[in-house]
Amino acid sequence: MPALPPPTLILRHCGMLLTMAGDRLVDARGPLGIIADGVVVCHGAIISFVGPDAAYAGLACAPGDAPPLEIDLRDRVVMPGLVDPHTHLIFAGERADEYHARLAGATYAEIAARGGGIVATVRATRAAADASLLALARDRLRTMARYGTTTVEAKTGYGLTPEAEDRLLALAAALAAEPDLPQIIPTFLGAHAIPPEFRDDRAAYVALLRTEMLPRFTGRARFCDVFCESGYFTPEESRAILSTARDLGYRLKVHANQMGASGGAAIAAELGATSADHLDYADDHDLERLAAAGVVATLLPGCSLMSNLPYPDARRYLRHGLRVALATNLNPGTSYTENPQLILALAIAQMGMPIADALLAMTRHAAAALALDDRGVLAPGARADLSIWSIRDYQEIGYHFGTNLVEQVIIGGRAPAYEDRSRLARDSHHRNADRSV
Amino acid sequence: MPALPPPTLILRHCGMLLTMAGDRLVDARGPLGIIADGVVVCHGAIISFVGPDAAYAGLACAPGDAPPLEIDLRDRVVMPGLVDPHTHLIFAGERADEYHARLAGATYAEIAARGGGIVATVRATRAAADASLLALARDRLRTMARYGTTTVEAKTGYGLTPEAEDRLLALAAALAAEPDLPQIIPTFLGAHAIPPEFRDDRAAYVALLRTEMLPRFTGRARFCDVFCESGYFTPEESRAILSTARDLGYRLKVHANQMGASGGAAIAAELGATSADHLDYADDHDLERLAAAGVVATLLPGCSLMSNLPYPDARRYLRHGLRVALATNLNPGTSYTENPQLILALAIAQMGMPIADALLAMTRHAAAALALDDRGVLAPGARADLSIWSIRDYQEIGYHFGTNLVEQVIIGGRAPAYEDRSRLARDSHHRNADRSV
Repeated sequence: MPALPPPTLILRHCGMLLTMAGDRLVDARGPLGIIADGVVVCHGAIISFVGPDAAYAGLACAPGDAPPLEIDLRDRVVMPGLVDPHTHLIFAGERADEYHARLAGATYAEIAARGGGIVATVRATRAAADASLLALARDRLRTMARYGTTTVEAKTGYGLTPEAEDRLLALAAALAAEPDLPQIIPTFLGAHAIPPEFRDDRAAYVALLRTEMLPRFTGRARFCDVFCESGYFTPEESRAILSTARDLGYRLKVHANQMGASGGAAIAAELGATSADHLDYADDHDLERLAAAGVVATLLPGCSLMSNLPYPDARRYLRHGLRVALATNLNPGTSYTENPQLILALAIAQMGMPIADALLAMTRHAAAALALDDRGVLAPGARADLSIWSIRDYQEIGYHFGTNLVEQVIIGGRAPAYEDRSRLARDSHHRNADRSV
Repeated sequence: MPALPPPTLILRHCGMLLTMAGDRLVDARGPLGIIADGVVVCHGAIISFVGPDAAYAGLACAPGDAPPLEIDLRDRVVMPGLVDPHTHLIFAGERADEYHARLAGATYAEIAARGGGIVATVRATRAAADASLLALARDRLRTMARYGTTTVEAKTGYGLTPEAEDRLLALAAALAAEPDLPQIIPTFLGAHAIPPEFRDDRAAYVALLRTEMLPRFTGRARFCDVFCESGYFTPEESRAILSTARDLGYRLKVHANQMGASGGAAIAAELGATSADHLDYADDHDLERLAAAGVVATLLPGCSLMSNLPYPDARRYLRHGLRVALATNLNPGTSYTENPQLILALAIAQMGMPIADALLAMTRHAAAALALDDRGVLAPGARADLSIWSIRDYQEIGYHFGTNLVEQVIIGGRAPAYEDRSRLARDSHHRNADRSV
């Protein structure tokens, strides 16, 4: 390990520390790696030590170093910051009227005929000014952080022209450069829908994606994703787009088998995607192939809640040995929520997901769904992204539902400055203010 | 109307004001009584004027009066404070381990054999100190207020001895006397379960309820409620307890038909209860009788979420012409949430409840479920209990789910002093501070 600067933040006496770094097979503490009365030592944005608080006495500050900020977290649960690996973060336009109309019996076709659906959001997003899109997304990111999230995947897909998709990636990069927001992992989802102007020539849009947009955005998006579903992109189109992306160096994601047996799961396995998302209609054969290919299964129960559809049975995915991730799927059509804690509650109560698997699904396995191995666990060398919960036992999660049990997050070793609710943030501000003098 | 003191608080330019005082049949604005750019004038704890802001110019302060606090609420939805008409507010002891065990397949019988269930909460509540119970309930009430609730029904039922039930009513009265909390409406639920010490002589417990507890608590609880369900109180026991209560001047509520055809709904109709609650297993004949008797049907979808049970279909209850109320049913066993907004989202998404009916169900009809006609609507003479939402259109409710869309409540004409999040509360504090000089 490279030499570290002196510690900057020490979380002491964490009542129940969940490292998420345990091993199900060999670690008696289970996969959650639970440490009672724990300590986490941060050097800037990196964790240097995690263990029982009693072990901390052995670490000493060099004389002359500024003393680190120490925070006492007894009676708190501390775990990695939550990772939300599937969101459509940047959009304008709300579709509340469409939502209530749909629940009152309007069909998707009727809503599309009125100009609703994804294209309605495309229209509103294209028309919105940069500043307005940034303000909307920033508010969402702050809400996410308040509810415990410290890393957010953000898909494009409401632009659907080279320029409009470029702008969404530029806005994602601008947000990523702002301090104290959850870290953003950008995904290019130009293949979200066939834009209205290509309705009669879908081949031309697929070609535009492959020959212009994908080469142009190389290095600016970590992932390429395709909505492989009847009415959106066919398996053949999806395979062509994703193959091109892979050749250009993108990692892959697939919106797969959400509304039917779309073939998306098989393509995700075939091309070695990092994750396949939704998977409500993936059959056991699909799940076998995904497991064999090491693809993470990202389940999105917000859609089930909002659209009154059956929830996927998490036990089926777990039985196949898949790593299961969970995400909010924040989007203005089918899952308009920023709250990862409600997603955990739904997974536990409605999807038959044991709480330990649910917590892994929003930390370690959610990081795996983003091909990130530096977060989702608390361990030396990992990012200092943490969530601090105002509860004494992690089993409270899911059980005490609907309100915000997170007191504070730490993102890259810092308490977000916009967050004025907690003692911790205030202490941290004062400390920062002191230091700047 | 009696002469009023000068106005103390004026909510101006409310972007979308929902009075909930419209009449479905005669009012073109519909039952929500929507006013664009509205104004609400409060005189202390009472509303004196509600209307379009343009009409406000006609109201003048007498010279020499202290000017009222004016708050500009453009781009906000303003409606009555939410009423939560079914909670088990005051308890100690969490049952998270039991919850996760139940989801993992443990039966109610197994959990009871381990000492779980209602009696576990009875044991923990009896053992808790007054200060501890008050602190727990106060925290819950503040959370409820943050999410929009300004009136909370609070049941006893975790004491189950004369002294322990007396203490719970005394604690409810103590909380009711604290400033800035939601108003508490106490319900006596000594008939929540047969306490362990009467397991072999249930008749003696029923007699204790009728001859000692009910007479003792007259005037201290507004309602008497009975858990009429297999394994709890039989229809005959329920009828006997409720009849005694009615004769003593209590209004009545019934936990009815939650787990089966318990007969509770029929008893609620027969005895003219104010509300019948749960009603998952009430058949059409039950609903007809309830409608004919003017009983409010209080539905509790939190139980369905937490226990993974089917949601009641709200349309069936509405079709019978019942006034339907919604409540959190906050309790540590089957619905551990303080959040009325999530209940609205569940009613809309999962119970087929049109949004207008859902909003009525947590305002005007929820007040009716507590036999209160001074709240749940915004009208002259009503209590100045309001919820201010950081949204422009009420249709956002249910659609944008899982997070807190309420910016602020006003309880009895005051912004709660413990609430430091919003501009409004801060302005209000400063104002109060100014005045005290």
